[in-house]
Amino acid sequence: MATKAKIGVLGASGYTGAELVRLLLRHPRAEIVLATADRRAGQEMREVFPQFSPFALPKLVAIDGLDWRSLNLDLIFCALPHATTQKVIKDIFAANPAAKVIDLSADFRLADTASYARWYGHEHYAPDLQKRAVYGLAEIYRREIKKAQLVANPGCYTSCAELPLLPLIKAKAIDLDEIVIDAKSGMTGAGRAAKEAMLFSEVSEGFHAYGVGHHRHMAELDQEFSLAAGREVIVTFTPHLVPMNRGILSTIYVRGKRGRNATDLHAILSKSYMKEPFVHVLPFGAVPQTRHVRGSNMTFIGVANDRVPGRAIVVAALDNLVKGASGQAVQNMNLMLGFPETMGLEQVALFP
Amino acid sequence: MATKAKIGVLGASGYTGAELVRLLLRHPRAEIVLATADRRAGQEMREVFPQFSPFALPKLVAIDGLDWRSLNLDLIFCALPHATTQKVIKDIFAANPAAKVIDLSADFRLADTASYARWYGHEHYAPDLQKRAVYGLAEIYRREIKKAQLVANPGCYTSCAELPLLPLIKAKAIDLDEIVIDAKSGMTGAGRAAKEAMLFSEVSEGFHAYGVGHHRHMAELDQEFSLAAGREVIVTFTPHLVPMNRGILSTIYVRGKRGRNATDLHAILSKSYMKEPFVHVLPFGAVPQTRHVRGSNMTFIGVANDRVPGRAIVVAALDNLVKGASGQAVQNMNLMLGFPETMGLEQVALFP
Amino acid sequence: MATKAKIGVLGASGYTGAELVRLLLRHPRAEIVLATADRRAGQEMREVFPQFSPFALPKLVAIDGLDWRSLNLDLIFCALPHATTQKVIKDIFAANPAAKVIDLSADFRLADTASYARWYGHEHYAPDLQKRAVYGLAEIYRREIKKAQLVANPGCYTSCAELPLLPLIKAKAIDLDEIVIDAKSGMTGAGRAAKEAMLFSEVSEGFHAYGVGHHRHMAELDQEFSLAAGREVIVTFTPHLVPMNRGILSTIYVRGKRGRNATDLHAILSKSYMKEPFVHVLPFGAVPQTRHVRGSNMTFIGVANDRVPGRAIVVAALDNLVKGASGQAVQNMNLMLGFPETMGLEQVALFP
Amino acid sequence: MATKAKIGVLGASGYTGAELVRLLLRHPRAEIVLATADRRAGQEMREVFPQFSPFALPKLVAIDGLDWRSLNLDLIFCALPHATTQKVIKDIFAANPAAKVIDLSADFRLADTASYARWYGHEHYAPDLQKRAVYGLAEIYRREIKKAQLVANPGCYTSCAELPLLPLIKAKAIDLDEIVIDAKSGMTGAGRAAKEAMLFSEVSEGFHAYGVGHHRHMAELDQEFSLAAGREVIVTFTPHLVPMNRGILSTIYVRGKRGRNATDLHAILSKSYMKEPFVHVLPFGAVPQTRHVRGSNMTFIGVANDRVPGRAIVVAALDNLVKGASGQAVQNMNLMLGFPETMGLEQVALFP
Repeated sequence: MATKAKIGVLGASGYTGAELVRLLLRHPRAEIVLATADRRAGQEMREVFPQFSPFALPKLVAIDGLDWRSLNLDLIFCALPHATTQKVIKDIFAANPAAKVIDLSADFRLADTASYARWYGHEHYAPDLQKRAVYGLAEIYRREIKKAQLVANPGCYTSCAELPLLPLIKAKAIDLDEIVIDAKSGMTGAGRAAKEAMLFSEVSEGFHAYGVGHHRHMAELDQEFSLAAGREVIVTFTPHLVPMNRGILSTIYVRGKRGRNATDLHAILSKSYMKEPFVHVLPFGAVPQTRHVRGSNMTFIGVANDRVPGRAIVVAALDNLVKGASGQAVQNMNLMLGFPETMGLEQVALFP
Repeated sequence: MATKAKIGVLGASGYTGAELVRLLLRHPRAEIVLATADRRAGQEMREVFPQFSPFALPKLVAIDGLDWRSLNLDLIFCALPHATTQKVIKDIFAANPAAKVIDLSADFRLADTASYARWYGHEHYAPDLQKRAVYGLAEIYRREIKKAQLVANPGCYTSCAELPLLPLIKAKAIDLDEIVIDAKSGMTGAGRAAKEAMLFSEVSEGFHAYGVGHHRHMAELDQEFSLAAGREVIVTFTPHLVPMNRGILSTIYVRGKRGRNATDLHAILSKSYMKEPFVHVLPFGAVPQTRHVRGSNMTFIGVANDRVPGRAIVVAALDNLVKGASGQAVQNMNLMLGFPETMGLEQVALFP
Repeated sequence: MATKAKIGVLGASGYTGAELVRLLLRHPRAEIVLATADRRAGQEMREVFPQFSPFALPKLVAIDGLDWRSLNLDLIFCALPHATTQKVIKDIFAANPAAKVIDLSADFRLADTASYARWYGHEHYAPDLQKRAVYGLAEIYRREIKKAQLVANPGCYTSCAELPLLPLIKAKAIDLDEIVIDAKSGMTGAGRAAKEAMLFSEVSEGFHAYGVGHHRHMAELDQEFSLAAGREVIVTFTPHLVPMNRGILSTIYVRGKRGRNATDLHAILSKSYMKEPFVHVLPFGAVPQTRHVRGSNMTFIGVANDRVPGRAIVVAALDNLVKGASGQAVQNMNLMLGFPETMGLEQVALFP
Repeated sequence: MATKAKIGVLGASGYTGAELVRLLLRHPRAEIVLATADRRAGQEMREVFPQFSPFALPKLVAIDGLDWRSLNLDLIFCALPHATTQKVIKDIFAANPAAKVIDLSADFRLADTASYARWYGHEHYAPDLQKRAVYGLAEIYRREIKKAQLVANPGCYTSCAELPLLPLIKAKAIDLDEIVIDAKSGMTGAGRAAKEAMLFSEVSEGFHAYGVGHHRHMAELDQEFSLAAGREVIVTFTPHLVPMNRGILSTIYVRGKRGRNATDLHAILSKSYMKEPFVHVLPFGAVPQTRHVRGSNMTFIGVANDRVPGRAIVVAALDNLVKGASGQAVQNMNLMLGFPETMGLEQVALFP
């Protein structure tokens, strides 16, 4: 049996941390040897997430005082809050310049540190590292990820908009000034921090939009769409919260350009993703449901005619904790460590 | 004490029927003297909806064989399935030309019977009655409803799009060719018929769009928007199902015309609904949540800036069974029978 | 029109506070003139609970510094956290010995302050007031409540066990040493404080027991059952959390005594509650569902045969925020202020 | 690579069928070569369950006309409705006496065909086969299952009561006349047939008991408990429905015998299951939650003190579709075909 890579999970008491643990526990080539959680340091993982009771896992430790060099980790997943992340990753690379890190926060996603400062309200703490960061959407940046030491795992909302839109933008098939992304997310996207607005009774049996007109994920969308288009693109994007745990669905309204209709857009997407293991384009006219990708690393995409001539509706669905976060991160790990890209990610969706 | 109007509820075993009963049981001027449910005829209402166990209600009967003349009803609510409705209402008016009927189905909403035939696949059975039907959105057609004998209660999706959009269209404030309505509904909108797709396990913990590009409510939207605009309007409309019982939220993307920005649109809506008891416009930038209108007859509307210059986002929320169906119907009854418009509809939303 | 009673609601930013406001807004004889919420002082009620946006309500204020005498309130509802409550109510009566207070916390429910100290870990701050407090289960203590100045509104779990069990215990119809109460509650029972365990994603799509063997409500059950039995009674009680907002269901396992079978128990309960407006006993063999009392002040009770000879199963359901808290409190207010007992509480359950 | 066993799944359009497909798709030694679904015959599996879209699966066929001999299947899972099952399995063994069948219905669970007739209202169609059927609770009947040709997979409710209770009964540690099982199940336990009572809007935001005093699973409990006790045992059992998809939780009230207290019961269970891969006993006093076993083949068991002297509370949780049905079935397949018992069943629970 091949030796296993030694893996660290920073921030193991949050939802993306737990999802990394779930996936890595069954990955044939990875072994979790470090798990951190500052507020839960000293506890066993099973006290924080009882579903791991039957499994052997390292005790949770605090980050402060870790000796990144002697730990000798093959790869580190960083599932820490925004801003803290920059400081920790700076420390890691200072101690061990050969480290490999996949960051699941937003901290290294924006190549332009000025844009970062504008959206996040402070200067970036590690602008030099930012230059070396690769945007971790595997279907688009596979080649770069393979050689990267620092990968900025994309946001869940953005992955669910970029996967359906990037091939259309690259093909110059849609009007760049009239893209409307109406996105709906399950509650795990909001994380595990105790906030009144996230209580069961505030969320259940209701639906609402939030961050209307000013959600931080917009900067990430702008960056990737503009890069693909070769010009500035600004999209309309509205996130909503659905009373469910997992899943993001993007309903995307586009206008075909140069005579392209919905069927043409479907053909472009089908061709783009024909060989991708984790992106599946449904037959024309069929649209995906979040429940059919739950717990899996799949993205399902559908394209349908709009009744307004010249327009089309593109719908994409993924599990925000898997393809939208930890599954994408494991996919990136596989690329960075030379494992088969699908290893440990082959679980079938859990429905119902 | 004033005498009570004698009311009939046809189709009392469905959700809109039950909601009519809930509201009428507490209406000071109405008394249910007839309740029909063909498949449950002979049963007590409490066997069909146990929440009514403590209340006295007439036993459920079948429609066939009812003598509409001798029943001497002051008003009939018709909550029957599509098509059946036309035949029953035809019978009612044949027997009693002075009848007053509020129909909660889609059967009398389309003034153009050709349009009806196109969307529903058969000729209308009562084209003459169609001519006399008044579209029952009280805030728009109050004056006509007061004099009407046959009111076509609007659809829940359409009310939640027409209330926010009609004033903007009438004011010529928005571009008519670029309206996108992304609508999300709770499950009661699908009715009580036993269908696999509506089972709890098919619906819970997931989210999806349906009827993409070809939902029947579009005909109703076209009609009202075109009428208001004085020209043909075709909107983009996508309905989605939310794993919750009640509530519709419409996220509406519009482009201001003639220099109107989001603030202007907010001002138009605020002014339009200033005196309306059942439409409440939130402060600029705030957007509504379905849970805050649950069980009430209120519609909440919010307007926010889009980041794309010239565009705005309008969000509306209502309870599909109340303002979207039975509450609107009781409001229409109040108008038709000369009662105060808010009578029996003053319940505060149930949250959480 | 009769003048309205001037009402204060202390703790208006929590769920029981909001539910009091919902009910009082439509009570014909009550007017909210004071609403407190320490952390939200200075805000409007609509900022804390947007469902109240269309209504005029006093601005939220802090409790500190209120002059209870000059406020001249006819009745005060106290929906504050445990322990704080004792101090505030002590202040109120110190300033105004003629005050009338209904406390929705657990602070004045235990007549025995030694028992209080044992379960709550500290001496009671107002033992003299405790002596004057009346236990506010209207169906049992109606006469005492009418004359009381301080009413201790019962707990939601306890009401849902006491209403079905007290008549059986008083009739000496069941074995007192073999009562098992398996209780299930919706999430609003846990309040609005932001705790990790109450987040949507921790609660949705799952079910669990808590406080197994040591829940504080047991002391209240012991007190009322022992009082009714004339000897010490200790029951088995296990609370569970259901992924829903509202509702408590108690499944109660009992053994008939002196030859009483399930039918006899049903007859005792039916007779006890025959004239009660808010307790409804279903036909023998039928059992209640929480959804059929949602939003109403009703308790539904059912009795069925167990297959084990001599045993019966009693099931009770109520809405924890209404009959289990704020509805019961308004019922007590009606008794204390001489209004009809059902005033403002006649809303029909909201289902679906 | 070892050759794969050729597997048939009868009834692949239901939930247990789909769950078998989910698990078998990732089983290294099994290949689905036949999938039936009478009403969906001719369709692809992805039309019935879109989550399987990315996978190659045989087209659905009808059962009628299948030649069981020439199909040459290594093992058949039968997930068909009650009664139909007996006829189909009779046909299978008639055509191929060497067949191996795991039946997920209730048809072969009751060894006593008279008991079957009493509970199901008709004579058993295959009493001879019944004699050869082995009850498929692997932890109890492992040895017999290895040699069996026909395995009757246990019911989900019964597994969740038998796993915690059988060791206690065998150890003569609890009073056999005072066992109360209060069970709560997610909605998938009710299957995929379209029934009004299972609609989302009937089930969401509510909780209720059903089959009080007369649920068919009782016969299965009686059989296994009586067998273990060496005398007749009749338990009190009440099932409830929780608004969630997956999971069963049993809260079990017992009285220790011969001085055994809760700690003793915990010790007995811990010892019994120490080496079992799919049953995990939590530390004393901790109780399980259904969400922590979701999607996994695990059963979690907890034991706590009751406050009533001499009594204890045992809580067990499992996923009704996995350990309660299809996962147990695959575990049985592994035993019958000589594969490692945990093969294909190692997925970690999906939480949140």
